[in-house]
Amino acid sequence: MDLTAFIRDVPDFPEPGIVFKDITPLLGNAVAFAQAIDALAEPFVDAQISAVAGIDARGFLVGVAAAQRLGVGFLPIRKAGKLPSDTHQVSYELEYGSDAVEIHVDACGTGDRILIVDDVLATGGTLAAAAECVSMTGAAPIGLAVLIELRFLAGRNRLPNVDFHTVIEVV
Amino acid sequence: MDLTAFIRDVPDFPEPGIVFKDITPLLGNAVAFAQAIDALAEPFVDAQISAVAGIDARGFLVGVAAAQRLGVGFLPIRKAGKLPSDTHQVSYELEYGSDAVEIHVDACGTGDRILIVDDVLATGGTLAAAAECVSMTGAAPIGLAVLIELRFLAGRNRLPNVDFHTVIEVV
Repeated sequence: MDLTAFIRDVPDFPEPGIVFKDITPLLGNAVAFAQAIDALAEPFVDAQISAVAGIDARGFLVGVAAAQRLGVGFLPIRKAGKLPSDTHQVSYELEYGSDAVEIHVDACGTGDRILIVDDVLATGGTLAAAAECVSMTGAAPIGLAVLIELRFLAGRNRLPNVDFHTVIEVV
Repeated sequence: MDLTAFIRDVPDFPEPGIVFKDITPLLGNAVAFAQAIDALAEPFVDAQISAVAGIDARGFLVGVAAAQRLGVGFLPIRKAGKLPSDTHQVSYELEYGSDAVEIHVDACGTGDRILIVDDVLATGGTLAAAAECVSMTGAAPIGLAVLIELRFLAGRNRLPNVDFHTVIEVV
């Protein structure tokens, strides 16, 4: 099954000139979504993953499915102010301004091997910050996986030196 | 397994006087989370569900897992401005001010039977608005399910007259 047929291009979202990769058609098709999650998780089946971390909010969708596929727990990495308990926070630069992500300090810890997932890799800032969050708990971010990689943005170059895997590449 | 042991009370979040029900310990335990999702989905196994709708953002976590459990697709209901394509929008009142949720107009349609899920039922405003969103597509919101119901807020009284199911009741 060609998974790219389930990714919808939405022009000028969230702002003029940006073509947004909409994964809702993929999510809506149980067979296609299962195939995508199998492909995303496959390289990590024997990697002794302790938990899957997903990034707020679309990374939650991919992350929970990947955690179930791998038979492990899920932990959320969220925008600042959303997690209720004590957190580690990492800020990162945007084109204009900055943003921050957080992880619960007790979400994972020393000895844990964490797979971090998101829907799309664009410039890589969020995913790199998420990996730094995981490291601050003492756990090891041993892999990064996304459904869609926007190769033309070269976000891969900003990622930490861990196993990176993508299901669909947009050149 | 007692699932309530995996729900953490966080006092004074998101504001003073509120005790927040934190589901992250439940999400982090694969066995407990699977048990919770089995319990949430069980009444709907033979209900010919077409898709599960989950509400942004913690409802995504519960919703994707429930969709996989039921073998159907998932569709997101999001805060205003987050969905990239054409949407129906429903506003609802908060204690101070109002909020709104949206659904893609093509997320579902006539003949579809939709189970709507969220993590917590509080006052019921969001879940009722989500059900109205689903109805605007022509689909039928045939069930509502949450992990945790805060009975003392009586949100159940604000819900439309469809099958409602909760896994954990807080009295």
